[in-house]
Amino acid sequence: MNKRELFAQIQEKKSFLCVGLDPVMENIPKHLLKYEDPILEFNKQLIDATKDLCVAYKPNTAFYESMGWKGWRTLTETWKYIPENIFTIADAKRGDIGNTSAMYAETFFNREKSEMGFDAVTVAPYMGEDSVGPFLNYKDKWVILLALTSNSGHKDFQVLETGGQKLYETVINTSSGWATADQLMYVVGATRAEEFKQVRKLAPDHFLLVPGVGAQGGSLADVCEYGLNDSCGLLVNSSRGIIYAGKGEDFAERAREEALKLQQEMEQILLSAELI
Amino acid sequence: MNKRELFAQIQEKKSFLCVGLDPVMENIPKHLLKYEDPILEFNKQLIDATKDLCVAYKPNTAFYESMGWKGWRTLTETWKYIPENIFTIADAKRGDIGNTSAMYAETFFNREKSEMGFDAVTVAPYMGEDSVGPFLNYKDKWVILLALTSNSGHKDFQVLETGGQKLYETVINTSSGWATADQLMYVVGATRAEEFKQVRKLAPDHFLLVPGVGAQGGSLADVCEYGLNDSCGLLVNSSRGIIYAGKGEDFAERAREEALKLQQEMEQILLSAELI
Repeated sequence: MNKRELFAQIQEKKSFLCVGLDPVMENIPKHLLKYEDPILEFNKQLIDATKDLCVAYKPNTAFYESMGWKGWRTLTETWKYIPENIFTIADAKRGDIGNTSAMYAETFFNREKSEMGFDAVTVAPYMGEDSVGPFLNYKDKWVILLALTSNSGHKDFQVLETGGQKLYETVINTSSGWATADQLMYVVGATRAEEFKQVRKLAPDHFLLVPGVGAQGGSLADVCEYGLNDSCGLLVNSSRGIIYAGKGEDFAERAREEALKLQQEMEQILLSAELI
Repeated sequence: MNKRELFAQIQEKKSFLCVGLDPVMENIPKHLLKYEDPILEFNKQLIDATKDLCVAYKPNTAFYESMGWKGWRTLTETWKYIPENIFTIADAKRGDIGNTSAMYAETFFNREKSEMGFDAVTVAPYMGEDSVGPFLNYKDKWVILLALTSNSGHKDFQVLETGGQKLYETVINTSSGWATADQLMYVVGATRAEEFKQVRKLAPDHFLLVPGVGAQGGSLADVCEYGLNDSCGLLVNSSRGIIYAGKGEDFAERAREEALKLQQEMEQILLSAELI
């Protein structure tokens, strides 16, 4: 999906919500345990309940890998179940030397080889340009590079001064020479709303993937005050706040309610910004 | 496997060789294609041919993931085939917020859940302490943190000045407060031999995982000149130079020959250093 199509989806659905599909067996409703693949059933019901309210789904690969190869199969089947008009993000935080990143690109983008064809993958910047390049060889596929993350550990390295600017700013500056805003997004945590202003100076046209709203404590209004641009430019993710909204047989309805609250808040924000 | 046991293995085998198991279907000998899982058969024969010459195996997860969920199953079966006295490294370059890194730790360390129980996993440092911590909750399991990598992209961020020292030096300094040399190693590329001296000042006791010998152009003698410590302190990896030494029916014998050359060179180095 290209940038124009993504913005068109946002306008049509009046939403820039991304739903994080990060299930753990211990937390899913008990009545699903009778299914052959309870996690897949959980995801399918969540997708059915929220697909008209969100523009993206973001499974985090860790949650699937932790269940071994069967979990990887669940990830594959989950990806296949997501409707084609919804942007799909493999939240994998990969990155390796060039010939190896090329393998990761096949993993997430080459449907014929891996049975999965996500629109985007999250990538860690530490290994530099040749670790990112192979992902950019796929038309209309995206790299979402970690810039400023939502966890406490962001303080260890991301905000270090590197020649007059912080490391995450250098990551944005340097990487914006590797690809345009048509293939590159950045991860900027919602818990750092005050720093969105600075990010937007460096990356005015890029989409930002924003985790940290909800369970991690970030505010949607704060994020949008500085983060919106003329193509919306934001994909705001909520995982636990939606998928675990209910723990009983009505979990999908509860998830829908939470997604609807966010979509309605987003609709107002898009209206105020005259983007719809 | 703990540090003492790892050094004992090195002394017994007179080797600090790590063999990288990074197969791609296009490059494996044609006569293996008749097997149900050609990659697994390739790995098994390589392991049989080299297991007395190396102390570690390091499958890079990208090569398995790129084949979809069946590839992940091949990785699992490969891990199971490696003898127990050999150190196993999941070269996965993972790292995420705390609750997600805990899932990655289960992936690679919790055999009951994922069917795999590697000794170590490579981790990218960008997300800081809480992205590394969950891996350290497993006794005698290791984090191998990226410090200075062997690819050209290491120049983009790893050598930036951050308050009087380069970023990779800050990564070593800061992270050495998170765990001792009994659970933490660093990746230091062999193509940067001149910088080993500096790394050893900051991390005198740690094991270093050294990729880049062979296909990537690094020299074993250069690495050892500065890298050896009193527990050896080095695991030197070779992947393509060994696993693709031959392309015919004798590929395993050719692989053994290349591994033997490295083992013999290592034996001389260990003798000279009076470590055996």
